[in-house]
Amino acid sequence: MGTMKYCSECGHSVSLDIPEGDNLPRYICKYCETIHYQNPNIVAGCLLSWQDKILLCKRAIEPRYGAWTLPAGFMENDETTSQAAAREAMEEAGARTSELELYTLHNLPHINQVYLMFRGELAEGFAEPGHESLEVALFDESEIPWDNIAFPVIHEVLEYYLQDRKIGRFPIRTGDIIRDQDQIIQIVRYQSR
Amino acid sequence: MGTMKYCSECGHSVSLDIPEGDNLPRYICKYCETIHYQNPNIVAGCLLSWQDKILLCKRAIEPRYGAWTLPAGFMENDETTSQAAAREAMEEAGARTSELELYTLHNLPHINQVYLMFRGELAEGFAEPGHESLEVALFDESEIPWDNIAFPVIHEVLEYYLQDRKIGRFPIRTGDIIRDQDQIIQIVRYQSR
Repeated sequence: MGTMKYCSECGHSVSLDIPEGDNLPRYICKYCETIHYQNPNIVAGCLLSWQDKILLCKRAIEPRYGAWTLPAGFMENDETTSQAAAREAMEEAGARTSELELYTLHNLPHINQVYLMFRGELAEGFAEPGHESLEVALFDESEIPWDNIAFPVIHEVLEYYLQDRKIGRFPIRTGDIIRDQDQIIQIVRYQSR
Repeated sequence: MGTMKYCSECGHSVSLDIPEGDNLPRYICKYCETIHYQNPNIVAGCLLSWQDKILLCKRAIEPRYGAWTLPAGFMENDETTSQAAAREAMEEAGARTSELELYTLHNLPHINQVYLMFRGELAEGFAEPGHESLEVALFDESEIPWDNIAFPVIHEVLEYYLQDRKIGRFPIRTGDIIRDQDQIIQIVRYQSR
């Protein structure tokens, strides 16, 4: 849980306590009685392809500076999930796309994130690095830098995509990326229908 | 966007401004330089069936006190989306379920929510009202109280379910519930594959 020291409503100190009728600790302001809830964030992004190649971005920011990833980032207020995915493609890779289709949902409970990745076509095969990318490039299946992919969830999405492309069908894939007490990453794959 | 008056890190006043390198206004503390991001929330819930009947809950809380809904609520930190859906079924309807499958994703950008609804079977056909429900009941298709369903997104999920059940196939359904400037609700349905 993110830390909170002062009430954003009245500026007094908050304390961590279980509110009446609740069963989880929340930051509570005993002065103005505001309860401050904290909830998971959505990360939205996309896998854009062009002539069998996949668009990847080399990260210019931490974490995982220098590693390759799919364009993705925190969904903002006032937008839809597919709008968020398209915006991230534009911001990180100057990439335009037409219709995006939902492709994967991954839960990352250890960092309170839910990843929603969409599939689409990279318009005109054009991309250029945005502020958060050192480099962007289109990769053939044989060229994908598997030993330098930024996050396990991105690895999962790429693997699913290449597998599904072989059969020409893209069912929506769901899974969990769990980091256990020994900091070991476990991947749970749910069956798709 | 939710309002924020004081910095939760240092207790000084915040102001709404566009940070350097960003393009959206954020609450910024000029004293400790913290930028406070605000992002959409996930509402997770489920449609549980038992012998062709669907479990609905009559709301004991605002908004829409007294209207019928599917068990659903804000996803918490440290859980997965399906765990959140199962927890809400237990809290609102005392309902247990076995495996849940993702069924719908709806964007509600006017209230910064993303609804994720799952499908599953109601264990032993048993349910009882929790604190947030006046009543819980199992409804045949012909008995569903269409004129008193709490939210448009719940109406959508029920409609999709009854339609998909007829063909015995439940593709994942995605859509937007948009409230325009005249406060009129528009529903966008994306094609499922």
